[in-house]
Amino acid sequence: MEGVAQESIAFAGRYKLNNLILIWDDNGISIDGAALTDIDVPARMEAAGWHVMSIDGHDFEQITDALEDAGDCDMPVFIQAKTTLGRGSSAAGTPRAHGLGLDMAELERLASEFETEKGISLWGQVAAVSKNGGSDIQAWTTPDMSGLEMTWDAGVAVSTRELSGRFLETLMGRGGDLIVGSADLGGSTNVKGAFAHDIMPGEFIGNYINYGVREHAMGAVMNGLAAAGMRPVGATFLAFSDYMRPSIRLAALSGLPVTYVFTHDSIAVGEDGPTHQPIEQLPSLRLMPNLNVFRPCNGAEIAFAWTYAMSDTACPSCIVLSRQKVMQIAAPENADLSRGAYIIKPASGRRVRATIVATGAEVPLAVSVAGILGDDIQVVSMPCVSIFRAQSDEYKKKILRGYVVAIEAAAAAPWFEFADAVVGIDEFGVSGDGASVYARCGFDAETIARQIKDSLGK
Amino acid sequence: MEGVAQESIAFAGRYKLNNLILIWDDNGISIDGAALTDIDVPARMEAAGWHVMSIDGHDFEQITDALEDAGDCDMPVFIQAKTTLGRGSSAAGTPRAHGLGLDMAELERLASEFETEKGISLWGQVAAVSKNGGSDIQAWTTPDMSGLEMTWDAGVAVSTRELSGRFLETLMGRGGDLIVGSADLGGSTNVKGAFAHDIMPGEFIGNYINYGVREHAMGAVMNGLAAAGMRPVGATFLAFSDYMRPSIRLAALSGLPVTYVFTHDSIAVGEDGPTHQPIEQLPSLRLMPNLNVFRPCNGAEIAFAWTYAMSDTACPSCIVLSRQKVMQIAAPENADLSRGAYIIKPASGRRVRATIVATGAEVPLAVSVAGILGDDIQVVSMPCVSIFRAQSDEYKKKILRGYVVAIEAAAAAPWFEFADAVVGIDEFGVSGDGASVYARCGFDAETIARQIKDSLGK
Repeated sequence: MEGVAQESIAFAGRYKLNNLILIWDDNGISIDGAALTDIDVPARMEAAGWHVMSIDGHDFEQITDALEDAGDCDMPVFIQAKTTLGRGSSAAGTPRAHGLGLDMAELERLASEFETEKGISLWGQVAAVSKNGGSDIQAWTTPDMSGLEMTWDAGVAVSTRELSGRFLETLMGRGGDLIVGSADLGGSTNVKGAFAHDIMPGEFIGNYINYGVREHAMGAVMNGLAAAGMRPVGATFLAFSDYMRPSIRLAALSGLPVTYVFTHDSIAVGEDGPTHQPIEQLPSLRLMPNLNVFRPCNGAEIAFAWTYAMSDTACPSCIVLSRQKVMQIAAPENADLSRGAYIIKPASGRRVRATIVATGAEVPLAVSVAGILGDDIQVVSMPCVSIFRAQSDEYKKKILRGYVVAIEAAAAAPWFEFADAVVGIDEFGVSGDGASVYARCGFDAETIARQIKDSLGK
Repeated sequence: MEGVAQESIAFAGRYKLNNLILIWDDNGISIDGAALTDIDVPARMEAAGWHVMSIDGHDFEQITDALEDAGDCDMPVFIQAKTTLGRGSSAAGTPRAHGLGLDMAELERLASEFETEKGISLWGQVAAVSKNGGSDIQAWTTPDMSGLEMTWDAGVAVSTRELSGRFLETLMGRGGDLIVGSADLGGSTNVKGAFAHDIMPGEFIGNYINYGVREHAMGAVMNGLAAAGMRPVGATFLAFSDYMRPSIRLAALSGLPVTYVFTHDSIAVGEDGPTHQPIEQLPSLRLMPNLNVFRPCNGAEIAFAWTYAMSDTACPSCIVLSRQKVMQIAAPENADLSRGAYIIKPASGRRVRATIVATGAEVPLAVSVAGILGDDIQVVSMPCVSIFRAQSDEYKKKILRGYVVAIEAAAAAPWFEFADAVVGIDEFGVSGDGASVYARCGFDAETIARQIKDSLGK
């Protein structure tokens, strides 16, 4: 019933995944009662490119035969196994057999009646088949990151999606088992460069998957790839990360090294309007445990984000990027990106009256605001909140001095963890060209400088 | 391709929605190139219970005939209209025709070549058909809320899902056009009471929809119902709200009065483990603009949440409820729930050394903590953060006095908007019985009281 299953079913059929067997425990029951499943599940599977078999799910011989036959098929195999839920028990064929326990006497009676020995032997066979299927799997490797450098120029305006695309391109040339892909936005998210070779139906030698408009299945497939030792990278727009949120959560919960590239990261995307303008997605992703969310502002931070994502094998990463051009600002020599946040524009004297914290595309804006306010204002870039949160209190105090204002084109509340005031967005965006929308939502250096001045004057 | 479409397709077929026509612009192109669609889309639609027609999408007569034939069908109708994307243009049949503009000269040439008059007349016909189809729609009404009261007893432990179920049951008896339903968890979420009458395939006189395990389609269908003037209520577990997040966002963006019932609202759900234990969902929903998230702690707050949800016609509402029993605590006589937060347990004297803010199931815990700490500690219950945020600074200051600590079994960061310290959860839960997991994650009165004491001592 679930959409992610239907997306994955269509994907598996389209790509002729001949090493995949799906057994449907067709008991006709769901938790709330008689299952309102599809009109004709086997026909729907066939139309999606699966070979369909139908068996009595209580008949061990039929199960064995079906599994053996499945091995010879050049497409994914669907086995409809008709069963009675809770067969033989007092709850047989009712939803009660799903969640509510049977008493111990009845459980003992059932155990004695079932052909337990035969069942154990059958599952032994299934295990043997699975083991066999895995014999072709090689040891996967991550790309060679040594000496990998990012070329970028301070003072030039370039979108962070473009810079990220350049870095990924180099990364894909370094070998390893990167499997890149996108939910039909490979071009716009800059993940489909010259080193990308399409994986085709029945031909799995490439390194790039066209997932189709299937964000959720993309997330689910990436989890499978990562569990098998590969390094999957998948891309879509940040607003559409909502479609794959359950799969992102499963990656975080399972500690899988999946990398998500989310571009078009704010109201500045412009004309497509509020449906394409993320507001709450960026801070909502940051609230998920065991997920690193990077929002880099320049080439150095992009290289840092990718390098960190590739080196961490127990945690998925989101790399959040702009569609619009972002003026590239160089950090001072001593900047330590590995702390998650650092002073990108120091105050000139010893006294720091205020710190402006920003991420990604808002960093150059913060630097402009500081320029208006005076020499005693410093700017902190915080490409990764979770890494910064893990630093010592000493480091945090060193970085966040004076009155702290956060600027980010996203929902504001979580920034109060670090800031006294926040310039954010707590309503949906509007349609219009990116620059106009940005300014209309209050992301304008003069406006913000005036607000901060008022607060400092108090 | 999208899962929500496949869920909705199966739902429409299953329920024989005979007043629904879906036209597929089958141009074989997606943004990234040749579309990797299903193997056999028409067969997949047929298997899902749709009547399928196939036409040349550039032939006006075929379109007219297909639409006329569709009117006579007793199931939903799928019209496969084969087309060439950007027909006649220099970008014909390529992805370039989707997003990249053609120049003005070419656009003018195309306009002159197309049978524009015929097209306008055709769409006039389509509009007439739609208008006709709508002639049966009555004026929908909200239930009569007058004098609707909630019966509950202070000092008794009862789950908030059960109290909510009781209130909804009364509400459904009050008439109006409530359409309640659940994604196969109607029993566990307490939304399927005696007044619920199943809507059946082809029979639409009931008031309860069994959506199946299709959270995303449930969200989408509710948006359609609300747009047609009904008051849909849909229920699942809070952890699974992630599956329907894009539909919740669309309700918020479109200002649709949809009510979501999300139960099993914390790590206290117990045995099902981390996949079923929400951590980031509650604060993530609160970050969405134009969405009211209620997490009530007692019968009065439940009545308030439901009444507010039913009265607000320009904003969807989430009602977030516990699986476990919650000790019912009565507020003082003068408590004003309509402010979104209020003092549920006042300090005894004038001086308030600290305020403990909590929501839902954590409110009784906060009252216990205050009991340990002393008479100068007050407890604030905040059933709705967005309503409280909209109050005057004066009211906020009156409510949040002294050192402010927030307690909520969810991700912590957003609470810093109001609190100096937060007792929250920033990692995934664990499997175990609810009470043990709750205590293990730090939700224990003695532990929290000690932490607050340490902070106050500084």
